[in-house]
Amino acid sequence: MELTNKLKQLIEEIEKLPSIGPKTAERIALYLLSQDEREFNALINSIVEARKNLHLCPICFNLTDREVCEICSNPDRDSSIICVVEEVDDLLAIEKTGVYKGVYHVLHGDIDPINHRGPENIKLKELLERVNSLSVKEVILATNPDFNGDITATYIAKLIKSVRMNLRITRIAVGLPKEAEIGFADTVTLSTAIKERKEYR
Amino acid sequence: MELTNKLKQLIEEIEKLPSIGPKTAERIALYLLSQDEREFNALINSIVEARKNLHLCPICFNLTDREVCEICSNPDRDSSIICVVEEVDDLLAIEKTGVYKGVYHVLHGDIDPINHRGPENIKLKELLERVNSLSVKEVILATNPDFNGDITATYIAKLIKSVRMNLRITRIAVGLPKEAEIGFADTVTLSTAIKERKEYR
Repeated sequence: MELTNKLKQLIEEIEKLPSIGPKTAERIALYLLSQDEREFNALINSIVEARKNLHLCPICFNLTDREVCEICSNPDRDSSIICVVEEVDDLLAIEKTGVYKGVYHVLHGDIDPINHRGPENIKLKELLERVNSLSVKEVILATNPDFNGDITATYIAKLIKSVRMNLRITRIAVGLPKEAEIGFADTVTLSTAIKERKEYR
Repeated sequence: MELTNKLKQLIEEIEKLPSIGPKTAERIALYLLSQDEREFNALINSIVEARKNLHLCPICFNLTDREVCEICSNPDRDSSIICVVEEVDDLLAIEKTGVYKGVYHVLHGDIDPINHRGPENIKLKELLERVNSLSVKEVILATNPDFNGDITATYIAKLIKSVRMNLRITRIAVGLPKEAEIGFADTVTLSTAIKERKEYR
């Protein structure tokens, strides 16, 4: 059977969503068509409402429905430490750990030399402006521990050093994940874990 | 950070979609919020359009935007063979093989004794009406080869026999998937494959 155009088009649109393969897209499309009116409207409304109400925080570029986001406007957060992440979901993941009490800066991307995405395509100018304030004492670079993330972190570190030489700049630790078995670890992670080994104190 | 309510609500709605876990829901939500206006509208429009235009074929209960679906209205399809499936995506999967030239009947569910879903909850009455026509020569039961699917197939087979004793009723073959390695096959599949073995001819 040739799929009707409307259905084919819907499946193609759903396939553009992140982490969605063709089979899942098909299943979601058929599910959307079979939902009752109330459930369907609840989904569509919450998408449209979220689009309408959420915007980027003018300080850290986190998503928020307030003028300034929950973290930047929270007096209990330490605004002298800025954790730099690539995307909002990285921020959410770090927040879930509950161990970090500083503030954030969301770059909304990374430097990707292969795809010609440069420093001007991420929120880097804005980070430099924040770092220029003397109240900032540390910048934690929490970009992904992959090729682009490493390049982005190195680039940002150099740039900040050129503006405020003595500012503390750190990078999140890379190594074996907790509960990992060494025999099953991939070579890159394992060799990094060896190189980044720490002294017993 | 407490997620803003609108974002939390959106993630929860997306998590209700089939095959979507919490992490994927979060990623899709953030993606929907970051899409540019044009892409976003294309997705929402194709969902709303599909809902508006697609309905169930009155003969086989396939999804269609015509009065009668593409398969039922195609004179090249053999309407004397009816393949009975649980859901529209099963029909789509069989169509993709290209080997089947008969027509379908979509039950929209299975008989599920544990969850008290009985024969009255699926399109069974409608199947019986179709089977009553003498032009039907064979019914292929292509419900899933699992507990509910087997029960559903057995129930339908008995019901049809009670109405048209000599009608040919078949069940799709169950056995090892192509390219499978016997050493890695699960016990149930393997024992079925042995029981269902066929003579060399």
